[in-house]
Amino acid sequence: MRRMSTISLDAMGGDFGPSVTVPAACNALKHNPGLRLVLVGDSGVINAELEQLGETESDRLDIRHASEFVTMDDPPAQALRGKKDSSMRVAINLVKEGESDAVVSAGNTGALMATARFVLKTLCGIDRPAIMTALPSLGGKTHMLDLGANVDCRAEHLFQFAAMGSVLASAVDGIDRPRVGLLNVGQEAIKGNDQVKKADSLLRASSLNYIGYVEGDDIYCAEDIDVVVCNGFVGNISLKSSEGVAKMISRIIKDGFGRNIFSKAAGLIAVPVLRSVLRQVDPRLYNGATLLGLKGITVKSHGGADAFSFENAIKIAYIEATEGVPMRMESQLQKMLNEPPAP
Amino acid sequence: MRRMSTISLDAMGGDFGPSVTVPAACNALKHNPGLRLVLVGDSGVINAELEQLGETESDRLDIRHASEFVTMDDPPAQALRGKKDSSMRVAINLVKEGESDAVVSAGNTGALMATARFVLKTLCGIDRPAIMTALPSLGGKTHMLDLGANVDCRAEHLFQFAAMGSVLASAVDGIDRPRVGLLNVGQEAIKGNDQVKKADSLLRASSLNYIGYVEGDDIYCAEDIDVVVCNGFVGNISLKSSEGVAKMISRIIKDGFGRNIFSKAAGLIAVPVLRSVLRQVDPRLYNGATLLGLKGITVKSHGGADAFSFENAIKIAYIEATEGVPMRMESQLQKMLNEPPAP
Repeated sequence: MRRMSTISLDAMGGDFGPSVTVPAACNALKHNPGLRLVLVGDSGVINAELEQLGETESDRLDIRHASEFVTMDDPPAQALRGKKDSSMRVAINLVKEGESDAVVSAGNTGALMATARFVLKTLCGIDRPAIMTALPSLGGKTHMLDLGANVDCRAEHLFQFAAMGSVLASAVDGIDRPRVGLLNVGQEAIKGNDQVKKADSLLRASSLNYIGYVEGDDIYCAEDIDVVVCNGFVGNISLKSSEGVAKMISRIIKDGFGRNIFSKAAGLIAVPVLRSVLRQVDPRLYNGATLLGLKGITVKSHGGADAFSFENAIKIAYIEATEGVPMRMESQLQKMLNEPPAP
Repeated sequence: MRRMSTISLDAMGGDFGPSVTVPAACNALKHNPGLRLVLVGDSGVINAELEQLGETESDRLDIRHASEFVTMDDPPAQALRGKKDSSMRVAINLVKEGESDAVVSAGNTGALMATARFVLKTLCGIDRPAIMTALPSLGGKTHMLDLGANVDCRAEHLFQFAAMGSVLASAVDGIDRPRVGLLNVGQEAIKGNDQVKKADSLLRASSLNYIGYVEGDDIYCAEDIDVVVCNGFVGNISLKSSEGVAKMISRIIKDGFGRNIFSKAAGLIAVPVLRSVLRQVDPRLYNGATLLGLKGITVKSHGGADAFSFENAIKIAYIEATEGVPMRMESQLQKMLNEPPAP
């Protein structure tokens, strides 16, 4: 029998707290028989939510009371030092103490990163954790990192991101040797700034399946990339620009079909088809970013996630837990980061 | 009577050369009575194209022979030093010599920037030219710079970009005090890297209508931004990521309506409406990036532009010429860059 995986949830995190996290938890338990969950937060509020759903604590669903919670505006240092009994902190502590295999939070990213880093520590050989997510692409999906944890970083950090991203893509997608690209302003060797040129040399000398420079449009359109690496400043802006364009297009289409009686009639027929074809790029399906490089699985959900979306973040943590990502990463990183440079 | 504006066209530039530039030129002359054009390139090929269109040289359409042309792969230095009679170089020379008011080229960006900078020189107070373009947004349009001319730059350069972008947006869109935002990973003051934090201080102390940090999605979704400033590395990746998402969505929609007989039937009704509503974000309407900061108007067209698209780049150069952009920029920049910092 497959071992059960236990995941602790920061039930109070995100814009909607338990009204989203509790139903998402119940659905996740229904869809994943090998999953156990611990809901961490105000036990009164959590129990009330469960009751409303006709659910209750069970051998697969624990509640762990925490008296505080981190707000979306709490500075990371304040969350870390001033709220030691927050739902976020207690949920992370459970991973540290071995009571759970992973933690999921929709709480504020800075606080989550600072607390997880403080409590769980970074993997040996990793200077800085990075944020990674999967994005839809014409080739299936592309994993991208860093998405904002490191706004300034050196070439060596980009190399570490590449090594971590490769291990994660291999573990969660079962890819033998993930193809890793370095985000740049062109594919020619002369293009780019010093940071990417130096990272390019490090990657060429490594045993990673490095395919060279890739450009912004390749994230979504290339069919031969599994992992895209960049610094957190660039990654955050690339991701948010992409979200902005998608939002603008969807708004324009929606408004367009509402313009007049003819377009409204066309919309009646077109909109269901559009909805169904666009389902494959539904951002909710991609909710859940992994904080990579920590000695414990930490998944960040979008703060504004709904229950469907938050359940997806739980699913990502569940896959990483069943695949034993931190252990695999530790052993593979040791190999990669210590290998002698190619002659 | 309004003064005529003369624009020199690098007729051989781009992926398609005269087969695109010549028809675009003829259409631009029809649509803009105040426009004169000089087609620079292989006069035999240009004349053959004109003949095919039933057109000929006139007092509004000159041909200037040039014996060479810059390829898309020519390194900038090679184009600059080794091809002194290229269509690109001769077209730029015409601006320098006062025979034309602006130049438009679909040729390779690096060569165009290097040659234009060498021949025309930068404006007083500007260290580095930048590339700027307009992008569609829910608020109308957003001007963005730098899009790739400067992959490494300091806070002072970002400040100069902001000053130049503000002047251009004011000149071409008739906006009194364009609202300028600085691209960052968050809107809070603590967010970002040292470069943007320092640029933020410079901008706050200036007389520009600076609105603070903006994020990637604001480029397309915010309704209160006229100019977005960033370094060329970030700008290029943001722009290409956005193009990639738009391309992916359009491919998915197209494939989706072709999936089966029902979706094909729905497509017959929906596609014309979609086409019409998406016309406002047609990238061809936004073709034409200005090389800002030079003592002469230089507009870069996309290399793969079709005639409709290339005509739009001509139109941008025409507006900048009639608005006397370089002179306005010179005088306004002097004021802005030399103003005493706010107390």
